Amino acid sequence: MTPTASDLQRVLEKIHRDLQPRLGQGRVADYIPALAGADPRRFAMAVATLEGAELGVGEVDAPFSVQSISKVYALTLVLRRLGERVFERVGREPSGSAFNSLVLLEHERGVPRNPFINAGALVVTDLLLEEHPDDPLGALLELVRGLARSAAVHVDGRVAQSEKAHSHRNQALAALMKSFGTIRGEVATLIDVYCAQCAITMSCRELARSFLYLANHGLPPGAGEEARLLTRSQAKRLGALMLTCGLYDESGDFAFRVGLPGKSGVSGGVVAVIPGLLSVAVWSPALDEHGNSRAGIEALEQFTTETGVSIF
Amino acid sequence: MTPTASDLQRVLEKIHRDLQPRLGQGRVADYIPALAGADPRRFAMAVATLEGAELGVGEVDAPFSVQSISKVYALTLVLRRLGERVFERVGREPSGSAFNSLVLLEHERGVPRNPFINAGALVVTDLLLEEHPDDPLGALLELVRGLARSAAVHVDGRVAQSEKAHSHRNQALAALMKSFGTIRGEVATLIDVYCAQCAITMSCRELARSFLYLANHGLPPGAGEEARLLTRSQAKRLGALMLTCGLYDESGDFAFRVGLPGKSGVSGGVVAVIPGLLSVAVWSPALDEHGNSRAGIEALEQFTTETGVSIF
Amino acid sequence: MTPTASDLQRVLEKIHRDLQPRLGQGRVADYIPALAGADPRRFAMAVATLEGAELGVGEVDAPFSVQSISKVYALTLVLRRLGERVFERVGREPSGSAFNSLVLLEHERGVPRNPFINAGALVVTDLLLEEHPDDPLGALLELVRGLARSAAVHVDGRVAQSEKAHSHRNQALAALMKSFGTIRGEVATLIDVYCAQCAITMSCRELARSFLYLANHGLPPGAGEEARLLTRSQAKRLGALMLTCGLYDESGDFAFRVGLPGKSGVSGGVVAVIPGLLSVAVWSPALDEHGNSRAGIEALEQFTTETGVSIF
Amino acid sequence: MTPTASDLQRVLEKIHRDLQPRLGQGRVADYIPALAGADPRRFAMAVATLEGAELGVGEVDAPFSVQSISKVYALTLVLRRLGERVFERVGREPSGSAFNSLVLLEHERGVPRNPFINAGALVVTDLLLEEHPDDPLGALLELVRGLARSAAVHVDGRVAQSEKAHSHRNQALAALMKSFGTIRGEVATLIDVYCAQCAITMSCRELARSFLYLANHGLPPGAGEEARLLTRSQAKRLGALMLTCGLYDESGDFAFRVGLPGKSGVSGGVVAVIPGLLSVAVWSPALDEHGNSRAGIEALEQFTTETGVSIF
Repeated sequence: MTPTASDLQRVLEKIHRDLQPRLGQGRVADYIPALAGADPRRFAMAVATLEGAELGVGEVDAPFSVQSISKVYALTLVLRRLGERVFERVGREPSGSAFNSLVLLEHERGVPRNPFINAGALVVTDLLLEEHPDDPLGALLELVRGLARSAAVHVDGRVAQSEKAHSHRNQALAALMKSFGTIRGEVATLIDVYCAQCAITMSCRELARSFLYLANHGLPPGAGEEARLLTRSQAKRLGALMLTCGLYDESGDFAFRVGLPGKSGVSGGVVAVIPGLLSVAVWSPALDEHGNSRAGIEALEQFTTETGVSIF
Repeated sequence: MTPTASDLQRVLEKIHRDLQPRLGQGRVADYIPALAGADPRRFAMAVATLEGAELGVGEVDAPFSVQSISKVYALTLVLRRLGERVFERVGREPSGSAFNSLVLLEHERGVPRNPFINAGALVVTDLLLEEHPDDPLGALLELVRGLARSAAVHVDGRVAQSEKAHSHRNQALAALMKSFGTIRGEVATLIDVYCAQCAITMSCRELARSFLYLANHGLPPGAGEEARLLTRSQAKRLGALMLTCGLYDESGDFAFRVGLPGKSGVSGGVVAVIPGLLSVAVWSPALDEHGNSRAGIEALEQFTTETGVSIF
Repeated sequence: MTPTASDLQRVLEKIHRDLQPRLGQGRVADYIPALAGADPRRFAMAVATLEGAELGVGEVDAPFSVQSISKVYALTLVLRRLGERVFERVGREPSGSAFNSLVLLEHERGVPRNPFINAGALVVTDLLLEEHPDDPLGALLELVRGLARSAAVHVDGRVAQSEKAHSHRNQALAALMKSFGTIRGEVATLIDVYCAQCAITMSCRELARSFLYLANHGLPPGAGEEARLLTRSQAKRLGALMLTCGLYDESGDFAFRVGLPGKSGVSGGVVAVIPGLLSVAVWSPALDEHGNSRAGIEALEQFTTETGVSIF
Repeated sequence: MTPTASDLQRVLEKIHRDLQPRLGQGRVADYIPALAGADPRRFAMAVATLEGAELGVGEVDAPFSVQSISKVYALTLVLRRLGERVFERVGREPSGSAFNSLVLLEHERGVPRNPFINAGALVVTDLLLEEHPDDPLGALLELVRGLARSAAVHVDGRVAQSEKAHSHRNQALAALMKSFGTIRGEVATLIDVYCAQCAITMSCRELARSFLYLANHGLPPGAGEEARLLTRSQAKRLGALMLTCGLYDESGDFAFRVGLPGKSGVSGGVVAVIPGLLSVAVWSPALDEHGNSRAGIEALEQFTTETGVSIF
């Protein structure tokens, strides 16, 4: 009972209609000026299927910076290079704490709980710098452009600058990990690359498309085995990480309500994957108290309810 | 590419062979005398499929107390009665802490993180007492006997007594939640029922069979809709909870390695579910440092690798 | 430049006058009904000097339950019997946490930070039960009656009952320590004695008098050496404990503002000592956010400012 | 029964003799190369009295960097300028945590517990930069040279460099506080000044002399009121802070054993004050597990025991 493309389009349209009265509820991220100006009522939702269909509602071509969603791309790059060795420097347990907390980091002697809290993502970017010392950001952009099949994917310099000007807490995380030896590169360089990475900008349509490799167990659809990004086992593991840790300290709630591996960003993007079937992206800037898109999570909950697809 | 019954039996036998040299590595739970005497080298693994096949290796008919695995049955009973209202008194986020920690409980004003840490399970049992005031344990036993299709399922009185004699930490959790109002019944009664619940005893074969209702999205296989225990949505949610919280602070690692919703007990049992397909139980008393069966987790990891089944 | 008795009386009267407009500001302890009814505007202040003078203003003869102030008497009894061995079961560091927190207790494997947080006081009462198994409360009352030179000192049964009915958090602390082995007696008995101890009732005048042994370095004034309660060194140590830990997580602030070793109770009593000179007690039931008498602390701050006495 | 100068000299010599067999027990600070080379058996102890006597044993003229002891000088400078306003940006409660922990800082939204943990000392140095923007270090050195009556007091450039090269944790603390707004200056400048401040170098004799202003309630002995550094009340408060927070998470133990306001540094220096009487400094590089000089604390405990002086 796999839904057809026209079923999916109908579901998206219903979701769009149903959400109208609640769009704009919540707070836009205001920790950096470059995000604070976003209109909380904006909305887009896009689906890409392994069969090649692309569907969408709302502003599916409007670009936005994907923020923490970029952590999945960076992790994919270093996993491909280093395999299990990645997990010598970062854990894989839900943290039970806010995304930018230093508490657990100190208790656990500088080894972050998982690659999706900020501390863990900084370690992943540090590994990216080690593996691609000449042009880490270029390597990342090349990957994302390929996955999104779009040369329009770019780093928004204004957003990156704004991130950097408000990066004291990430600097604190990096300096603390440097003191423990978990971070090995220069803190200043690391913060530069990390802020640029968070400012990777694309549309909702491109975002959905770019996650199809995870729906396809590590292989970008249509590509030959030589282009495989992750082994089937690695893809399973990345999916498990997204399910348990992808939405910060709301991950359990997201798993409970939506039941899919997903990843969110503070700009209001959320992307999720149904293994073997499709990937789905939503964007709406108004956030809930955990820093995740309120409409994004509601849309995905309704999506799984209406289509009846679930991994459980 | 669903594995056949004979495929599955071959996989179980291979796992059994491969594990031989490592059986007995780890420590048997020693916090109560009734468990401390277990032979760490014992091993059983059983599979029950939705098509009705039952397969096994090792001591599949040896009874053992399921300990924390009973938390799933208790939660099922109160979910069926109360639905979402359960989550007014217990959360659904991974805890990031040990199973019996009081720290988060205090920070979060007496509301446990999820129903599978001890504090949360005590709340669930408190709800069970409210819903079945006359014979809470009887109601639970009736459910489990029906699911396991076995009248042999029973409470091991000696284990229950031993649990009770060493229940000071659980008493501390209950008293703290009583002070916050999360627990409403008498602490002493609650501890009695909770210790008895943990001492529910059955074989590995019965355990695998008893979880088929979760593989079947809430409906015991072969039963009519009137016997449904959980709605499809509730079953999805329980699966998500097991995946994110079922193995204490090793849940992330279990999701990462095994990729299935599961639940463990300190006596060395682990049970997991492949939605739409089968349930699988392992028992081996030697534990890892998180209190989960070492051989049990290895067996399940190999099981998903060999069969190629995964939810991701 | 030691103040004379008439200087002291003048200072007390000035404090009484100056405090009038602010009496009643703050909240009376409301966690038990027996305290919640207190009139927040009541006030008494009494001084007893080593030279034998006794001075006072306000309701110096009104009885009130001393609550946590009793922890000093209990500690004195067990210190006299066990000396340094007391500190094998309880620490002597400020806790940095609220008086009834379980967090540090868990991190530090059941050994409370100091004898004045509730966990530590429970350990001290557990030691009291070990040392005076027949009549621990009787031994304590005998000590306090002797120090206060008053047979009127008694346990208020209604307050003790009320304490007990709301003792779930203390039960949690005791059960947790029992699980770690720091508490050795029965939790139920311990809670009974502890609740009775907190309900020891006396007047402000009697309270001031009863602390003269600490002003006199361990020897009740006028008594012979055979009646010594603490060695000079033990008295020094108890003074240091009071200064660093006597007012819960407001101890540092109290040391900063008042600069004297002191101890407070949730009923609104505060007592302090100027070694070599005098002891001073205040009672006013309206509390600040840390659970200490607001007027009591202000009165003591003004007392040290006006008299110019200080240990620093 | 104030001890005479010759009494004091006899006590110092006895301490020196008694300590011989245990000198060198413990570990020299090894977090920076510039300290790691110190001979753990070195020892000096010096007393300066308000009557003008100076006594000593061991290497009383050997220079060493005073490290955290410098926090008292910096706090004195900003207290003199800003008075109570200092405590709008830093607290005055014992922390119950290690000197360089980030945990409490995060829980308490960037306001450090007290001025003697590293986070609080960084805030004090940030205030110093605000008050003396042109030459903060010069202002500090001028103060210390005046108090020590010695032009030899200087900043050891090699030590300061070494501190800076290993300052990642302090950078983390500063960046975190910058994110909360508690730190207002540039993190890099702040770290520079802070590392230089810790490298202030003087002898044990000079150290004892330099703390006489605290023994004299805020006025350098022999100076006129116009040279007063702290009001009597401020000196009392600084004394209370030293007693409750001066030896990190060993402060309670130090108060318990020694009973005097004191301050330690990781290079092995400890200084304490007997108000109205004298100041006493010890230096011995081998540290206990809290980072305080093992021989230093023992020497001070014996000093109070032998002289019988105590504030309690």
